Amino acid sequence: MSCEELERFLAAEFPQACNPESGLSIEAVWERGCRVRQAFRASSLRPGGTISGAVMMALADFAMYVAVLAAIGPVPLAVTINLNINFLRKAAAGDLTAQARLLKVGKRLAVGEVDVRCDGQDEPVAHVTSTYSIPSAGGNIRPIA
Amino acid sequence: MSCEELERFLAAEFPQACNPESGLSIEAVWERGCRVRQAFRASSLRPGGTISGAVMMALADFAMYVAVLAAIGPVPLAVTINLNINFLRKAAAGDLTAQARLLKVGKRLAVGEVDVRCDGQDEPVAHVTSTYSIPSAGGNIRPIA
Amino acid sequence: MSCEELERFLAAEFPQACNPESGLSIEAVWERGCRVRQAFRASSLRPGGTISGAVMMALADFAMYVAVLAAIGPVPLAVTINLNINFLRKAAAGDLTAQARLLKVGKRLAVGEVDVRCDGQDEPVAHVTSTYSIPSAGGNIRPIA
Amino acid sequence: MSCEELERFLAAEFPQACNPESGLSIEAVWERGCRVRQAFRASSLRPGGTISGAVMMALADFAMYVAVLAAIGPVPLAVTINLNINFLRKAAAGDLTAQARLLKVGKRLAVGEVDVRCDGQDEPVAHVTSTYSIPSAGGNIRPIA
Repeated sequence: MSCEELERFLAAEFPQACNPESGLSIEAVWERGCRVRQAFRASSLRPGGTISGAVMMALADFAMYVAVLAAIGPVPLAVTINLNINFLRKAAAGDLTAQARLLKVGKRLAVGEVDVRCDGQDEPVAHVTSTYSIPSAGGNIRPIA
Repeated sequence: MSCEELERFLAAEFPQACNPESGLSIEAVWERGCRVRQAFRASSLRPGGTISGAVMMALADFAMYVAVLAAIGPVPLAVTINLNINFLRKAAAGDLTAQARLLKVGKRLAVGEVDVRCDGQDEPVAHVTSTYSIPSAGGNIRPIA
Repeated sequence: MSCEELERFLAAEFPQACNPESGLSIEAVWERGCRVRQAFRASSLRPGGTISGAVMMALADFAMYVAVLAAIGPVPLAVTINLNINFLRKAAAGDLTAQARLLKVGKRLAVGEVDVRCDGQDEPVAHVTSTYSIPSAGGNIRPIA
Repeated sequence: MSCEELERFLAAEFPQACNPESGLSIEAVWERGCRVRQAFRASSLRPGGTISGAVMMALADFAMYVAVLAAIGPVPLAVTINLNINFLRKAAAGDLTAQARLLKVGKRLAVGEVDVRCDGQDEPVAHVTSTYSIPSAGGNIRPIA
């Protein structure tokens, strides 16, 4: 699936999350990964001017979902079963990007890692690993590993 | 710190997260734990009528933060360094509660686990473990384990 | 499966791990959990007289495996897909016990948590959560949650 | 620290783990990472001819420890506080290698990820993230991130 196909699919399936106000966009999709963006919103700031960890977790989960969809096709029922996040550095006010890389796409499970970065900072602000469950009736599943 | 003291502290320190519109409240606080609530919001629903995983992660992180504050006193700079969540079951439309239990409160780190439940469901919908870093200038830190 | 049935099954299927020299034993098994023991071995000590983290991880994984087997029956192909451990305190020289509690037993996945304790210490030395994949041809699987 | 310095330090500090019978060796060390090897031992095999997960966890923890030591100098008291492993594929009989990459080296914490591979297999068999606590009296600590 291309960026445009994915954004159309998500806008139809997840209108609460993927709408013009959400600030989410899909920047690039490739064989086993993707990069997504969360535009800065002042409501995400916490004391000291850092971005809330909850925003990073939500963005990383979104990145994994997009990467899984891109790999297995439009299967709305793929669900996160595990997410582990290490917060590495404070994120200053700015857009966040999350780059996902799938480590495995099996028949029943997909596992990946995600780097979360903040525009204007050299080093990643968080690192995530996550596992998705792939529904058994998953249409055109194409295991790639 | 009591529920009221904690809510006052949080409303002052985190007005973006802890305000009347957030739907967050602190129900109970005890020696090494607490229970917090996220009122249902329609915007948290995903296709199929389940509550977004991001809402559960944010609530579990909030529960850990409250439990840590209750244990070490008002230290605004305590920060999450790791959060691991296992999603166990779908959460239907309804309030969520998160009950945190601290497994360790040391001088530099606090570790705890959180059960996330959905009103009307018997079994927990998610289970979280998390580690907080406690600032070294942390005022009245009282390690309890 | 009872303790004796489980130990017979494991001795047959995993002779490398479950043999008289391993020091592993199953102390109790119940509806959704179990307690297992690792007898102390001097080779597990690290500088300062603490027990190696690797021994705790192996014991927690064994506890989860026993709990899963007890719940779904003798399915040798159940495999760990994720294990997350928080080391809480140093473990002094002594036997270790690990008590597992299943949080979910589904058709495809089982999730549980494990407390690792050291004889003679009041507080747990480590806390683990883990996910097992259950083979689809899993004979007499009886999902209990 | 070079490979030789590290092996000398470890043989002195951890004679139970780092001795000629352990099968552990340090292959390469660089600015923020390292690669270590576990020689194959028949006792690590499980039914079906796959290598025990416990061996992979122990090797990944060793890799992180070596990477942390290489970064901060010979500090025997650096300890693992969290380890999260995703098992990706079965490991056939053969040597295992683990390549660690530090994501952060702070004053109090180091975070890294580890790829575990099995000789003769193209794809990694496991992926680990881990956090180490660095003792405050840590001599010549040189935070590099």
